[in-house]
Amino acid sequence: METVKQNIPTAFDITSAHQRIKPYINRTPLLSSDVLNEMAGCYMQFKCENLQQIGAFKMRGAMNAALRLSELQRSKGLATHSSGNHAQALARAARLLGTPAYIVMPRTAPEVKKQGVRNFGGEIYECEPTLEAREAMLAEVVERTGATEIHPFNNYDVMAGQATAAVEMFEEMNVEIVVAPVGGGGLLSGTALAAKYFSPLTMVIGAEPEGSDDAYRSLQSGKIEPAQSQSIADGLLTTLGDKTFPVIKENVSEIITVSDVEIIRALRLIWEKLKVIVEPSCATVLAAVLNRPERFEGKNVGLILSGGNVDMLKVLKLFS
Amino acid sequence: METVKQNIPTAFDITSAHQRIKPYINRTPLLSSDVLNEMAGCYMQFKCENLQQIGAFKMRGAMNAALRLSELQRSKGLATHSSGNHAQALARAARLLGTPAYIVMPRTAPEVKKQGVRNFGGEIYECEPTLEAREAMLAEVVERTGATEIHPFNNYDVMAGQATAAVEMFEEMNVEIVVAPVGGGGLLSGTALAAKYFSPLTMVIGAEPEGSDDAYRSLQSGKIEPAQSQSIADGLLTTLGDKTFPVIKENVSEIITVSDVEIIRALRLIWEKLKVIVEPSCATVLAAVLNRPERFEGKNVGLILSGGNVDMLKVLKLFS
Repeated sequence: METVKQNIPTAFDITSAHQRIKPYINRTPLLSSDVLNEMAGCYMQFKCENLQQIGAFKMRGAMNAALRLSELQRSKGLATHSSGNHAQALARAARLLGTPAYIVMPRTAPEVKKQGVRNFGGEIYECEPTLEAREAMLAEVVERTGATEIHPFNNYDVMAGQATAAVEMFEEMNVEIVVAPVGGGGLLSGTALAAKYFSPLTMVIGAEPEGSDDAYRSLQSGKIEPAQSQSIADGLLTTLGDKTFPVIKENVSEIITVSDVEIIRALRLIWEKLKVIVEPSCATVLAAVLNRPERFEGKNVGLILSGGNVDMLKVLKLFS
Repeated sequence: METVKQNIPTAFDITSAHQRIKPYINRTPLLSSDVLNEMAGCYMQFKCENLQQIGAFKMRGAMNAALRLSELQRSKGLATHSSGNHAQALARAARLLGTPAYIVMPRTAPEVKKQGVRNFGGEIYECEPTLEAREAMLAEVVERTGATEIHPFNNYDVMAGQATAAVEMFEEMNVEIVVAPVGGGGLLSGTALAAKYFSPLTMVIGAEPEGSDDAYRSLQSGKIEPAQSQSIADGLLTTLGDKTFPVIKENVSEIITVSDVEIIRALRLIWEKLKVIVEPSCATVLAAVLNRPERFEGKNVGLILSGGNVDMLKVLKLFS
């Protein structure tokens, strides 16, 4: 019987995760643009997790965590509180495994997010829009159903799953610097472990909005600092977890912060030059590179585009 | 010395074209979406030529035609009259070969299209916005410079180049029906030849806007009918050529026409569900499949997304 992992993922855990989830995920393409390279003065390849199943890298971690459960655990269902991509990812994972997904969401969450979860057969439990209410409701659901909670990022199986995006990148290109966005730190910690094990000369950099620079401050102070919530990059307003922070602290060279103006400019460049639809959170990685030309000059840079679930008309307003 | 090809491309011509252009083009990904498949009742894979160099399949044909020229021809430059993707493709091909590109464009062409050509080092010759003026200006430029004219579609080397998109698709999936958009017929004729030689059980269907249904009418009447110019799919308003029509007539099963309302609906589905930015012309292929569920039911369908060079704000307005 497999059980939920209690230690930082090893190289073996990550390659096992990759094999385990392969049938359920897309191997996403790397894209590049001569025009963007000229603009940045380096050679960039973008790992398009916006083209992943459910439109985000979250599918990797959720699927790995779900597949790591025992038959008995699995049969009782999966649960989380999330209003974002993790909720959809968990709902899809549960449906693939023929088990229920119980998703606790604030009643104020946008209808389109709720619909996304319902499209994959997830059961939504609405609560008041406070962290306390969400946690209380989740505890109640888990108590009643026996479902296993799968946290969006503070979970080693999720971390091992997120690491597989960078694993695929390292298989296809020589990466001198890899840049990933940082919110709760699941993607960045997974990326850092993938680099450590499979591409040890690669430097790992996180990209974060200025208005929610808790990861930047946490690396400075050496302890987890609370997030603010002031940025267009609404996927990155989360505080680091006690599982993600130590991995980031040990394996990430630097967090580069970028302003919302820089994020919007980079977002538009990605839409126009790469021809893919990405969320504002994604654009932090390109904004970080454009912000520090001396850091990246002439280098092979891998950038992870985390997802593409976005209200297109809202983005239109940002561009016009 | 190689010379411009005077016969319908053979299987050998197409595989040679593919080898020849590989260093200069992207191998574009195939994308799929469970949601779109459920909606259409078939298994669709989309060949993303919007993610091609210069943002369109035109790079394939232009590059092949340029590489087929003799050293002497090549040294005198490439020329065309075009205000679309072919102009950018030819400019990039010329730059890669270190030779000039002379592009005749109506002075009324949008500044963004002119800038696209200049970005690749193309020299623009402006003329009055009539076909006569364009042809006269092109003849003058060719006379003066000795450059070789490369037509956007009515050219067998271009046709062989465009065929390579379908070749890549057939290498990666089992295709029961392939759907490509039809304007001048370069992509559709190339796709039809690729199917004939490399996937002979595959049925080939063209997708065309109702408001410019000249290919549909040409197949009915057995001769080239003139195009009208009434559709949002502005890349498909061209009349077939005397080289593309016979190939289409012999190898294409059917042209499905779609309304602009259907095109806009399909365009939005591609942006939202596949997370890629495509031109309205591209959306005709999905619109055709959604329009004829009985024709495609349960089948493996390959759809070619031809390009992504589009004014995003204009498209986002169509969606709102």
